[in-house]
Amino acid sequence: MKVVVLFSGGKDSALASILLEPFFDVELATFAFGPYSTDEAAAEAAEVLDLPHRTIVFDDEVLQEALGMLLAAGYPRDGINHLHRCALEVLSEKEEFVADGTKREDRVPMMSPDGVRSLEDRKKVHYIRPLAGYGSKTINALASSYMDFETLNSEALPASDFEVGLRLALKERCGQEAIARTFPAHHMHTRVIRRKRI
Amino acid sequence: MKVVVLFSGGKDSALASILLEPFFDVELATFAFGPYSTDEAAAEAAEVLDLPHRTIVFDDEVLQEALGMLLAAGYPRDGINHLHRCALEVLSEKEEFVADGTKREDRVPMMSPDGVRSLEDRKKVHYIRPLAGYGSKTINALASSYMDFETLNSEALPASDFEVGLRLALKERCGQEAIARTFPAHHMHTRVIRRKRI
Repeated sequence: MKVVVLFSGGKDSALASILLEPFFDVELATFAFGPYSTDEAAAEAAEVLDLPHRTIVFDDEVLQEALGMLLAAGYPRDGINHLHRCALEVLSEKEEFVADGTKREDRVPMMSPDGVRSLEDRKKVHYIRPLAGYGSKTINALASSYMDFETLNSEALPASDFEVGLRLALKERCGQEAIARTFPAHHMHTRVIRRKRI
Repeated sequence: MKVVVLFSGGKDSALASILLEPFFDVELATFAFGPYSTDEAAAEAAEVLDLPHRTIVFDDEVLQEALGMLLAAGYPRDGINHLHRCALEVLSEKEEFVADGTKREDRVPMMSPDGVRSLEDRKKVHYIRPLAGYGSKTINALASSYMDFETLNSEALPASDFEVGLRLALKERCGQEAIARTFPAHHMHTRVIRRKRI
């Protein structure tokens, strides 16, 4: 059985993939935004993990919708959730099993229980969250056993996650000042730099 | 790293154990009630899975408390949740990693997010729910790949889960009529009868 995992290059989606690997043929998928090469970090991390990887480019419309939600709310939650939901919908068009690295304590991105049921029923897909039953402390212990990773500031080195794409698009359209109004001051992310086989 | 999994002999706790097996040394633990041999089904299923298993007998006091909650509420939820919480507390006294087979759609037994945080903080334990991010449809697909199991009526063949122990205790103390008042008419459970290695 094959599963496609939404992959940002960070420790959570990497660990989710490692937990699935004994039971599925794992393929990693990263969503990028037309004008920006936000998939580079994930492509490099996928190589480190030795797992197949592909990039899918969001339709411009999806990015516009997410930006609209972001500006309407004044905070990024709705826009990021929209990108996450759209990414799962796109994957579910062709795949039977899709997964991501969202964990027990995550708030954003996160689908509601109704949203999950709707996705699974409409698309006849299995949506798996391998880390949903793991706390951050447990995830850090397991991640440290199976990989080396570093924590980085996304302004210096962009991550391949949804927030980074939204920040770039917002900056281009509304300027740096709009980012300061809408997002937290710093966006940190993790990046896998070595896989440990134990 | 060792993890102890709360085990009833059924497909959910068996699948949870199988998902953990590539990453942990898995031991199965079943809680029984002093006067009743409710651990037999689980002990047999553990042998089928070829995983180490032990039985822990609940203190009489715990069973009394659960019965009290059951009778006060008029339905089994609070009593079953009490047994589940007590079982995790007992395991957490000596173990660093504990797990169970509760899944995404389960309502009972289920710890609240606050209860989980409290358990993990007080006991310095990692509590893992490997199936928390899997829906029933996905669990059935995976379980069928890794084991044969049958679905049984617990009155004919008792399961090793918390409800069966509570039913036996309630019947002894208050008679069959009290069971009819408090529990659903039939309690069905699954039992692992063969492990498939693929």
